[in-house]
Amino acid sequence: MRRLVFYVSDGTGITAETIGHTILTQFEGVEFQTVRIPFVDTVELARMAVAKIEAHVRSSGLRPILISSVINPDITAVLSESGALVLDVFAPFIAPLEDELGMQRSPRVGKAHGLVNFDEYEARINATNYALSHDDGIDVNYAEAEVILVGVSRSGKTPTCLYLALHYGIRAANYPLTEEDLEKQELPHRLLAYRARLHGLTIDPVRLAQVRETRRPGSRYAKPEQCRWEVAAAEKLMRVERLPWVSTTNSSIEEIASKILSALDIQRHMY
Amino acid sequence: MRRLVFYVSDGTGITAETIGHTILTQFEGVEFQTVRIPFVDTVELARMAVAKIEAHVRSSGLRPILISSVINPDITAVLSESGALVLDVFAPFIAPLEDELGMQRSPRVGKAHGLVNFDEYEARINATNYALSHDDGIDVNYAEAEVILVGVSRSGKTPTCLYLALHYGIRAANYPLTEEDLEKQELPHRLLAYRARLHGLTIDPVRLAQVRETRRPGSRYAKPEQCRWEVAAAEKLMRVERLPWVSTTNSSIEEIASKILSALDIQRHMY
Repeated sequence: MRRLVFYVSDGTGITAETIGHTILTQFEGVEFQTVRIPFVDTVELARMAVAKIEAHVRSSGLRPILISSVINPDITAVLSESGALVLDVFAPFIAPLEDELGMQRSPRVGKAHGLVNFDEYEARINATNYALSHDDGIDVNYAEAEVILVGVSRSGKTPTCLYLALHYGIRAANYPLTEEDLEKQELPHRLLAYRARLHGLTIDPVRLAQVRETRRPGSRYAKPEQCRWEVAAAEKLMRVERLPWVSTTNSSIEEIASKILSALDIQRHMY
Repeated sequence: MRRLVFYVSDGTGITAETIGHTILTQFEGVEFQTVRIPFVDTVELARMAVAKIEAHVRSSGLRPILISSVINPDITAVLSESGALVLDVFAPFIAPLEDELGMQRSPRVGKAHGLVNFDEYEARINATNYALSHDDGIDVNYAEAEVILVGVSRSGKTPTCLYLALHYGIRAANYPLTEEDLEKQELPHRLLAYRARLHGLTIDPVRLAQVRETRRPGSRYAKPEQCRWEVAAAEKLMRVERLPWVSTTNSSIEEIASKILSALDIQRHMY
């Protein structure tokens, strides 16, 4: 079975797409062909979106499903004329919340991923610059770090720091455990003052060897026994030092970031 | 008026939080105190979440709202005993989709941001490494780039490339337009072969001067007249060369990324 799925939004459509993806994967065996129609924030653009949907339906002969995260009721009304099964991400929440709060909502467009103020944007950009300048032990002044990730080389520290910066505006540094640290079974002294901000990352050694082999083929660095030794020594060190740590092997970047925030008890709104 | 809001999820809770944030901002004047309870993926953990919610309600005296993106019906049943107004992100979609598709869903946990396979994770990590090594004209071999951002220094190229990499697994490079490029009003020759992948970024010159001043106080680089000249010359060049371009001044990173994908007609699933 095949179906056409349109993600229509007055903003980027990321929210509609994320929810739609989760729901649709629960219908196994159905092949969904998806089309993204973002930034539909006027009635005029809604009419154009409907025309686009109708054209797709004509040329494919498939029945359409429309997943909408449009907030403006006038635009939603136009979209409902498309003939698609319309699933509205926000609508089911409105009535129960209006009841609970005893007031009417005032629709405002694209709050999820848009129209952010300068401060938010700047916090994210500054945090990204911080992550880049405090990556891989480049700048080892950690006074301003909110999170310092430690782990062996290629355990996933850099992408995680960048994710924390881009999404939460968190200043995240990372320090790669050296062979010397691992042999001495000691954290470097400069990290000790920031113990409450330290979080470990580890990775399956077989996986690590694959990643390193792609990076530096044939090197000692990528050898399975070297990776096994480094990972075992790093995990032992993190246990002894009682650092919270998480394995990146079977996790998405979102999950890793979320676990770090929980472990360090950082409550931060996601941008 | 104040209310307690709990975001409960079997995964990271990002989806629940994004939707909740959009809805709640439509109720002006209400102060929402939010608590994130992620990774609730067993009945046991659901009972602990309920206990946590009850404790918060007791100590604050506030009425609770629970926004849930839990997929497993057994866990949802436990959460509904919390006494909170439960708003389920996915539930309203299930019945209409089961009707439309004539089949039952098979609930699978945490698909939105979790349990991803190695290939997806690797695509994102590789794209991030690509963005880092092709940032700011470091590596100017663009043969493998899917997107090449051009713009003046500090127009927002680096965060946008990293966002495209982390979220879509897209290999995005960036090239900072030099004074020489701007004076000659020509794109560098090495970019011309990849014209279809070029996308411009621009920024309000007043804003640019602020950003640069923070970076290099008192420099010629940060002077308002220098910024005005660079931005005007860059925008002229992009118009002449017919590059699609977008201003980063009043946009979120999500919006910028989404517009670039639309302009270059890249249909890519977000991880």
